[in-house]
Amino acid sequence: MSRHFIIDCDTAEDDIMSLFMLLKNNMVIEGITIVEGNIAFNQEINNALWALEYISDKLPYEVKVYPGSNRPLVKTFRTVENVHGKGGIGDEIPIPKKLSASSKKAVDAIIELADRYPGELEFLAISPLTNLALAYLKDNSIAEKIKKVWVMGGTIYGRGNITPVAEFNFWVDPDAAKIVFNSGLDLTMVSWDLITNYTIEKNDWDNINSMDTQMSKFYSNIYKHYREFAMTKQKMKGNPHPDLITTAIAINHEIAKKTEMQFVDIENCECLTRGMTVIDYLNVWNRNPNTEVVYEIDKSKFMNMLYDLLKWF
Amino acid sequence: MSRHFIIDCDTAEDDIMSLFMLLKNNMVIEGITIVEGNIAFNQEINNALWALEYISDKLPYEVKVYPGSNRPLVKTFRTVENVHGKGGIGDEIPIPKKLSASSKKAVDAIIELADRYPGELEFLAISPLTNLALAYLKDNSIAEKIKKVWVMGGTIYGRGNITPVAEFNFWVDPDAAKIVFNSGLDLTMVSWDLITNYTIEKNDWDNINSMDTQMSKFYSNIYKHYREFAMTKQKMKGNPHPDLITTAIAINHEIAKKTEMQFVDIENCECLTRGMTVIDYLNVWNRNPNTEVVYEIDKSKFMNMLYDLLKWF
Amino acid sequence: MSRHFIIDCDTAEDDIMSLFMLLKNNMVIEGITIVEGNIAFNQEINNALWALEYISDKLPYEVKVYPGSNRPLVKTFRTVENVHGKGGIGDEIPIPKKLSASSKKAVDAIIELADRYPGELEFLAISPLTNLALAYLKDNSIAEKIKKVWVMGGTIYGRGNITPVAEFNFWVDPDAAKIVFNSGLDLTMVSWDLITNYTIEKNDWDNINSMDTQMSKFYSNIYKHYREFAMTKQKMKGNPHPDLITTAIAINHEIAKKTEMQFVDIENCECLTRGMTVIDYLNVWNRNPNTEVVYEIDKSKFMNMLYDLLKWF
Amino acid sequence: MSRHFIIDCDTAEDDIMSLFMLLKNNMVIEGITIVEGNIAFNQEINNALWALEYISDKLPYEVKVYPGSNRPLVKTFRTVENVHGKGGIGDEIPIPKKLSASSKKAVDAIIELADRYPGELEFLAISPLTNLALAYLKDNSIAEKIKKVWVMGGTIYGRGNITPVAEFNFWVDPDAAKIVFNSGLDLTMVSWDLITNYTIEKNDWDNINSMDTQMSKFYSNIYKHYREFAMTKQKMKGNPHPDLITTAIAINHEIAKKTEMQFVDIENCECLTRGMTVIDYLNVWNRNPNTEVVYEIDKSKFMNMLYDLLKWF
Repeated sequence: MSRHFIIDCDTAEDDIMSLFMLLKNNMVIEGITIVEGNIAFNQEINNALWALEYISDKLPYEVKVYPGSNRPLVKTFRTVENVHGKGGIGDEIPIPKKLSASSKKAVDAIIELADRYPGELEFLAISPLTNLALAYLKDNSIAEKIKKVWVMGGTIYGRGNITPVAEFNFWVDPDAAKIVFNSGLDLTMVSWDLITNYTIEKNDWDNINSMDTQMSKFYSNIYKHYREFAMTKQKMKGNPHPDLITTAIAINHEIAKKTEMQFVDIENCECLTRGMTVIDYLNVWNRNPNTEVVYEIDKSKFMNMLYDLLKWF
Repeated sequence: MSRHFIIDCDTAEDDIMSLFMLLKNNMVIEGITIVEGNIAFNQEINNALWALEYISDKLPYEVKVYPGSNRPLVKTFRTVENVHGKGGIGDEIPIPKKLSASSKKAVDAIIELADRYPGELEFLAISPLTNLALAYLKDNSIAEKIKKVWVMGGTIYGRGNITPVAEFNFWVDPDAAKIVFNSGLDLTMVSWDLITNYTIEKNDWDNINSMDTQMSKFYSNIYKHYREFAMTKQKMKGNPHPDLITTAIAINHEIAKKTEMQFVDIENCECLTRGMTVIDYLNVWNRNPNTEVVYEIDKSKFMNMLYDLLKWF
Repeated sequence: MSRHFIIDCDTAEDDIMSLFMLLKNNMVIEGITIVEGNIAFNQEINNALWALEYISDKLPYEVKVYPGSNRPLVKTFRTVENVHGKGGIGDEIPIPKKLSASSKKAVDAIIELADRYPGELEFLAISPLTNLALAYLKDNSIAEKIKKVWVMGGTIYGRGNITPVAEFNFWVDPDAAKIVFNSGLDLTMVSWDLITNYTIEKNDWDNINSMDTQMSKFYSNIYKHYREFAMTKQKMKGNPHPDLITTAIAINHEIAKKTEMQFVDIENCECLTRGMTVIDYLNVWNRNPNTEVVYEIDKSKFMNMLYDLLKWF
Repeated sequence: MSRHFIIDCDTAEDDIMSLFMLLKNNMVIEGITIVEGNIAFNQEINNALWALEYISDKLPYEVKVYPGSNRPLVKTFRTVENVHGKGGIGDEIPIPKKLSASSKKAVDAIIELADRYPGELEFLAISPLTNLALAYLKDNSIAEKIKKVWVMGGTIYGRGNITPVAEFNFWVDPDAAKIVFNSGLDLTMVSWDLITNYTIEKNDWDNINSMDTQMSKFYSNIYKHYREFAMTKQKMKGNPHPDLITTAIAINHEIAKKTEMQFVDIENCECLTRGMTVIDYLNVWNRNPNTEVVYEIDKSKFMNMLYDLLKWF
């Protein structure tokens, strides 16, 4: 049975590969919704269109790009070109040649697709959660209709990236994250300080560089900037795959080797811990668990899916 | 030239009279949008429909009721049946006989009407600002298209009602209020601690009771509960008209005897001063004024409009 | 019967005149305690010593200067030389010739004096409340022993100076203010937006300048800077006397023409409304009143006390 | 060369054993200062006196108990008799027979002892940091005079106990913790979610119970309640030793097998993450490290010290 996905992007390199991985694994992409995050909003839209053009001959159907919110609900935020480069794939600026974004807004696309695929639609949230929160605020019945939300975001051990304790997606719009985590949506959370343990270290990076496929060259090219930043500024042994690992888990849940059902909330005050993920691991608040929290990844299974993708063409 | 209004209600007695005053003064009501606030959300919808039925033979056109947000964007809130009664017009529970609400959501109605009447549409915000904030978040071009937002809300001297320093509408959804006041929308603010100086004291109350028109009897009946609460719990000399005064000013700006252009922001933290109106009256923040703040009301002009309304039939 | 005062200063011009007014009216000054506030902390100490030297031949007894806290309990703050000048009396830098500060800390002096004069000691708090809060935290029995705390601080109608809604003393150390207002100490609060209605307008200023006494010349000299700032940046008709009016009320309570016993709390979050005074004027929180809030001043009585002081020598 | 300690307690079972461990290892205890925390304040004082009486024949000199703050600086808190029992050693209520607390306040004792042993005094902070913060606020020169502060508190991976993300000591008085961590004091932090990996599991517990010394029986008796709570409510495999491990590290730094110098701050807002430890592990804030954070314990070395203590008599 086909699986129907919305992929909610702030379209940098890892979002693009996530899109390709979904396609490679025959997930039906009902829409790409764009949200404020990594880079300038319009560039995020262009990147999505550019990526669709790049993969166009592999696309059996039209995939629409729905512009969503270009700002957090309430707070201000900053983009992170220092991490992903001005173009989100390094400093090169991708420009789509033919495709253009839909005039339909992301919030409407999400609600309509939830209506069209009640109990089937899956939402790949690999960016700030503003679009999903706005859709829920407009029509909270999506909480029953959307089968699953795969969330790349937050931390499991309080080790953030944009601030010491907050991960970027939750920090950008902590109000939206708080709405989503208290919405009743069925959530699986793949956190930042989890995926940093599963980076592309030297041997794999060299392997990929020696694969000599179009995809592998595309991969090395768009991850160079991010790899550099991650290994210098973030003490990692290679470039991480926050979105791609989340996507892989969405496609094959076995990649989530260890998970726990826990109650998770988000600190949304404009304070030191803005965007902090609060996991009630001791159940001191006596709240029903609202999230499947992933605690371990099957790296070999993930790498197989990555290599499979890089061999695509 | 006709003036086109959306009236955004949490439909208690003062909202209903505001609706009637708009109609009496030939303002074209393009729609009634409903938002969380005074009483149970569905009752707010029913009250709006009930009011339309009550005035149906005076209505030259169909007025639609568009359900909006039944909750603040992020925070929790409580309704105030203690102030307005369970039915919002006292404890009687109004039930519409024929009319029913539109299936269109308030946020879409607001955006569509702003598109239809660019530079003309006026928004009477006499309730929490969640609907307007959601419309702005979905399509920020409404900031240019909506000619004017008449806001009943906030305080000018830090004297609130639901808390010592916060007025109910801003307290219910301070995040929405903060979005609206920083949106570039053209705002006129009629505050709570302003209107409490212009209540219906004994002589006017007795006058109204002796008018013996259908409208005057309707008025006395629906304000009894609110009058009781205001005079006992809120140390007022009569029932206040927060919404109706705002509506009168919208209809005839002369009723705003004294105004000042000031920068206004809202405290949206979950703290003692949640929902507090922050007026930079000394311009210590060097921000461009974003609000016309009303500091004095021409009570006789307002009373004339009220008596004119109560003589309607 | 003598009245025993501690005067807690951040020693700018209005603190100095308050000291002189206490002396002129035969209040026994048991100590001057210094706290962070208007200007550099050491300059505040020097100003107090310099003022004592200026008045030395009128001083029947030694008055000690006890250095207190040079910082708020928890938060950061900034001094306001722009308001009072670098020297606190304009840009001239007063330097004491002989006197030096006590080695005893303010917190100990306050506790010892409260022990020495149980039920009699009066505390003139015309600066941030850090010293008083620290004394209370060290020995909360001072709440019973200190007869009265005359507080210059806060607002009654949410009209601040350092921020739109917060007065400087409460803004500098809102945590200390919150401790003091919840300590059980007997408080009278003279607020900023009250005293701004009782400034030294042109006729009085010219009168004072024509008095040709040493004190009147001293007065005009030390207030020039503050007068300039108040009339240009704070839209006032003359220089205000926040501390001096509070001192006058302490000396002669009749100058507080109208007061109300109310529950007052302070917003101490690091947010837009940091330092905001929250007066539960409608008693929505059902708390026992903890403060005598002054709502009106007898200006002629105050001016008589000022002219009496300026004629001293 | 003798080492001079102040041990700052909220005197439950683990504080008492820490006191005994210091004595057993010939650390000179210059004073026991008491602070709000685990149980009723006066019971904390009694427990300290009772412990001194219990060990009196091993005490070569008088150890004074200095009562400190019985409340956090600004916020409210709650005691945790559910964790430690009403008496702090289970529900039994220890009552000292002869000894009584000093009339000197903790804050003065700390400052005086810092003066007496400049560059030598070590401060064992195994409770909320209110006393140390008050001493610093009164005389910030202690930051240079106190050689070392061994802090039991906080988390390294955001796993708290009193709330999901906050450890009890930092949660009780986050303002005090923020003051201490920004004071320049030389800090070593032994966190809650570190020590929970080094509990007294069944084999050691059984060993201890079979030792049949006075100390071992004392140990089993006072830890029963805490062991029960830890193993049922906190998912631990035995009773933890937050204070005792910190004390052991203070005595023999080698027990801190792995440490990192990092910048640490504390979230002191009254929000979801109140008391959260914020470790800038990626140095995104470019602040100089202010804390030696312990990341690994040499359990065998610690257990040797514990068994050595339990064989004392």
